[in-house]
Amino acid sequence: MKEELLTVLTVREAREQLAANLPAELRRSERKPLLQCLGRRLAEPVTARENVPGFARSTVDGYAVRAQDTFGASEGLPAFFTITGEILVGVVPEREIAPGEAMQIATGAMLPPGADAAVMVEYTEEAGSGCIEVLSPVGPGENILREDEDIRAGEEVFPVNHLLRSQDIGYLSALGEMELAVFVPVSVGIVSTGDELVDPTSKPRPGQVRDINSYALFAKTLELGGKPNIYGVVQDDPQLLREKLQEAYAENDLVVVSGGSSVGTRDHTAEIIASLGQPGVVFHGMAVRPGKPTLGGVVEKKPVFGLPGHPAAALVTFDLLASPLLRFGNFTELPEGTPPISAVISRSIGSVPGREEYIYVKLQRKEGKLLAEPILGKSGLLTPLVEADGLVKIPLESEGTAAGSDVDVYLFGSDYVL
Amino acid sequence: MKEELLTVLTVREAREQLAANLPAELRRSERKPLLQCLGRRLAEPVTARENVPGFARSTVDGYAVRAQDTFGASEGLPAFFTITGEILVGVVPEREIAPGEAMQIATGAMLPPGADAAVMVEYTEEAGSGCIEVLSPVGPGENILREDEDIRAGEEVFPVNHLLRSQDIGYLSALGEMELAVFVPVSVGIVSTGDELVDPTSKPRPGQVRDINSYALFAKTLELGGKPNIYGVVQDDPQLLREKLQEAYAENDLVVVSGGSSVGTRDHTAEIIASLGQPGVVFHGMAVRPGKPTLGGVVEKKPVFGLPGHPAAALVTFDLLASPLLRFGNFTELPEGTPPISAVISRSIGSVPGREEYIYVKLQRKEGKLLAEPILGKSGLLTPLVEADGLVKIPLESEGTAAGSDVDVYLFGSDYVL
Repeated sequence: MKEELLTVLTVREAREQLAANLPAELRRSERKPLLQCLGRRLAEPVTARENVPGFARSTVDGYAVRAQDTFGASEGLPAFFTITGEILVGVVPEREIAPGEAMQIATGAMLPPGADAAVMVEYTEEAGSGCIEVLSPVGPGENILREDEDIRAGEEVFPVNHLLRSQDIGYLSALGEMELAVFVPVSVGIVSTGDELVDPTSKPRPGQVRDINSYALFAKTLELGGKPNIYGVVQDDPQLLREKLQEAYAENDLVVVSGGSSVGTRDHTAEIIASLGQPGVVFHGMAVRPGKPTLGGVVEKKPVFGLPGHPAAALVTFDLLASPLLRFGNFTELPEGTPPISAVISRSIGSVPGREEYIYVKLQRKEGKLLAEPILGKSGLLTPLVEADGLVKIPLESEGTAAGSDVDVYLFGSDYVL
Repeated sequence: MKEELLTVLTVREAREQLAANLPAELRRSERKPLLQCLGRRLAEPVTARENVPGFARSTVDGYAVRAQDTFGASEGLPAFFTITGEILVGVVPEREIAPGEAMQIATGAMLPPGADAAVMVEYTEEAGSGCIEVLSPVGPGENILREDEDIRAGEEVFPVNHLLRSQDIGYLSALGEMELAVFVPVSVGIVSTGDELVDPTSKPRPGQVRDINSYALFAKTLELGGKPNIYGVVQDDPQLLREKLQEAYAENDLVVVSGGSSVGTRDHTAEIIASLGQPGVVFHGMAVRPGKPTLGGVVEKKPVFGLPGHPAAALVTFDLLASPLLRFGNFTELPEGTPPISAVISRSIGSVPGREEYIYVKLQRKEGKLLAEPILGKSGLLTPLVEADGLVKIPLESEGTAAGSDVDVYLFGSDYVL
């Protein structure tokens, strides 16, 4: 096969063609205890079953009153109230508030029936014999939370796919949602190919190098909430590769095979994918740099990606193809994700219209400005990968970006969507 | 104790006074297999023990040559080479390159002795009888990686405290670093107090609410790489609180007790902390909003924090006090962390000079601009917490910020340092 004859798609086309062959949702769901749900995504929306706080409560230390009894009160002409009791937090008030009455109330304590506001203790003065003066009026609802003011029973509080952060876990505990329907981590079978590769635990002989992609993609899968499984290094042998791919395929939701960027190996990989089932290979290349020699396929509703051997390219193409599936189950209607950081690019970057480019950049603060320094270097170097803080995207039709321009930097570790 | 008489410190002072009473490093270290180190921080710098790639290799498909033999080559006047063999990836070349000789070489294959460059196949033409023409010159080192060009043995590749990301795990696998010295997650004992609080698994009776902070701080501790332990809700009873704090103290590296924001409870908490050991309470309040009623203490080299009961305040003060300890072991020389995102604030925020303020904001993209919308609301509401994407800081001496100004947004989930 000559490269020119192979199907090279833009990233958008590649995703569309994959989506057309994938189920609408790649992930299964399960129910998990709330405390195990940090970093998971919701498989069902959460609808509040209760009001929060659940009862009207004071937000200040002071006095529960009928707001209308304070109208017109001032330091010169205070309103007088008879104190009829004290309400501590956690207990039910023993009596109602009648006109002209007030009850002492603590922050968080339950408002007594009849009261519709609280006066802060700072705006009152003791007036002797169980009375107080209120020096400033309050409106109805002031200094209190109504029964359903925070969350109303029946309200949807989080949609499907919401990524559960620490504050969300706290919020859901307030609602008594002790178990959630969340998506099961997508399992990713990771295969590396290449005659020069050895397992990282081995000492390479002259001419050999350690396999990097298995470990990098293992960790990347974990970062994205997936469940990685390493299948190790396969030499460039079609039969061995076929067996390994079948094994990974049977045991995972998604398979990535990296390396083998030579045309011969790509042909092997493509033929093996084609032989595993329908529709097989969907595209033979992507209009993206780095990452052109990327294969995309679907076999019986499961995706398989042939990623380039260079780690910088393997990680970018994993971000473009596997990452949306791990987080959102398909490519249709990808959310915005964490917004990129704005920075000034320190040098001009040329680009060829007709392909997307992703530039590894390092951020530096100089004179109060955030500078994005492109990390350029020879193909195959690893050091740029670890020096970088994120990626800058040069869109499909752009001819590049000039030094000094503002660029968007997708920060590694953030929940960005490319 | 009257509030005015208590020690209220700025955030910087609070950290300095805590640091003066804490060990230089709160964390212990351990050795872990590389694949278990994602999200951990290095306890020792990593120094490369090997060169990477370890041998000179080609970065292109083409021919290994002596660069000087190509000097002056052009399409009109090509340089002629005799092909003396082919080098596949993963094998040691069988012979040297002598002047005028070339060997066919694959991307990633080992350069033969004598060669110092590679010519891309695109710049060659077959010339029959085992010869090629080179149409364009290459310089020494061109299209190859030298033995130590990526990583040099003896070079420090990561400093202490480096947070290990997916690309770092791949990088370290290239170096054969299969086990790393990393910090052990700091264990955090989490106690909640308040007569109105019930465990989230219980159904609150009228006047009661579920404890939120235990679950939120559990998840927050996990997010920051710590190891949370929940001790549950203690009623406002000094004896019970003392027993629970002692238990949490004995079993953890750090203790947080939240709630009990009333002056009475704060007194209890302060007295109990003082009674646990030296120096006891270091400060009784912080010049920060939200979060003024925050206690800071150290007992026998272990920190203890009394956080406000309101979750918004508890999470901000946890970020200011516990988060640096979880991630960096002390407050001295905190690194910059992930840079904040720049956004335009949608409304003016007033502030009182002499205290730091943290505003929960929601980000929205409007007409290409990123807008930070302050989420204001009554004290004690939970909903603003989950609507927010991050925090805006109003510095100590600022009087606030005007609508339309640029502000820095510290994004939740990123590795920011406040």
